Amino acid sequence: MNSPIDFFFDFSSPYSYIANEWVDAVAARHGRTVRRHAILLGATFQVAELRSPVSHPMKREYSLRDFERSARFEGLPYALPPVFPIPTQNAARVFWWLAETQGESAAANWARAGLRAVFTRGVPLHEAPALKTLAAEQGLDADAVERVWNDPQWKARLKLANDEAIAAGVFGAPWFVVDGEPFWGNDRKAQIERWLAGGPF
Amino acid sequence: MNSPIDFFFDFSSPYSYIANEWVDAVAARHGRTVRRHAILLGATFQVAELRSPVSHPMKREYSLRDFERSARFEGLPYALPPVFPIPTQNAARVFWWLAETQGESAAANWARAGLRAVFTRGVPLHEAPALKTLAAEQGLDADAVERVWNDPQWKARLKLANDEAIAAGVFGAPWFVVDGEPFWGNDRKAQIERWLAGGPF
Repeated sequence: MNSPIDFFFDFSSPYSYIANEWVDAVAARHGRTVRRHAILLGATFQVAELRSPVSHPMKREYSLRDFERSARFEGLPYALPPVFPIPTQNAARVFWWLAETQGESAAANWARAGLRAVFTRGVPLHEAPALKTLAAEQGLDADAVERVWNDPQWKARLKLANDEAIAAGVFGAPWFVVDGEPFWGNDRKAQIERWLAGGPF
Repeated sequence: MNSPIDFFFDFSSPYSYIANEWVDAVAARHGRTVRRHAILLGATFQVAELRSPVSHPMKREYSLRDFERSARFEGLPYALPPVFPIPTQNAARVFWWLAETQGESAAANWARAGLRAVFTRGVPLHEAPALKTLAAEQGLDADAVERVWNDPQWKARLKLANDEAIAAGVFGAPWFVVDGEPFWGNDRKAQIERWLAGGPF
């Protein structure tokens, strides 16, 4: 019985958007499933003393170019959102509510819809009206979703996810754990594929 | 006439060591040559407000693991040197002296010898005796090499290389420029190969 691939992402991470589009197919080719974890990169950055790549001189310009090129490399549509990066705690709380009340598949659908909304349509998920509209488009009750992201229970669930990620050594996204082995970044795809195909190398 | 691939590296960068081992073959497959640039990551980090990955909590542990795994992925021997990272200005000055007095091939040989010495044998290139021994192993006059790294002319040449790199937007290593397009990291190999094979994507 193969263990699932743990996949950590942030709704405001371009490389998470890209990896989210290929991770299920890669997993399926090797008899694996994907267990997603919505987290806040801000929390991991703080512990690891890191900043967003786009907050650094020089690295900002390169990263904006590389986001686009890396999306094209995977054949994906991509557009930098007008506001970037954005706070994503509300979208992440809704993710955990779906994961725990409707299951992995509903949460995965929300992850895909949210990441695509941000990185192909520039949807400002940090604004309540936009997030409620996305929820409705996904067949969810928009008012219920708004109650979820204001609910201490789901705030605590996201906090737990961040704490668990940090305890597992996660400092960036996308982050994958395969059979206990950590892989950071969309650009670790080839290493992950080799690991899945042939085991530890 | 295809332009050469510009390849920026630091003698203390594990990913530079790995990329240095494949860059010539990749270039040759596509009718290109490689033009190497020894630089000091310390200089670029300062301008970009970055620190070495191993100076960050959490990122340190992951990076040490990923250096090894990324070397294995390319089928290369690798061992973390006992002292890491090390100051590499002397090795880099010798590189520029060779490049300007003996040509690209002699400089490339020195780059390969230095990177392999650090990352397969743990040679402390920041110590004069070790650097002189490496020079002698490479058929160079060890005393002449020592005079080179103390010579204001070659100190200035390295400073120029750092300044040119920063002006070109380089903030990390390995760094590649292909037809004006910048690629950062050993993990951009697949994108570079696609660019070389098919042009801009």
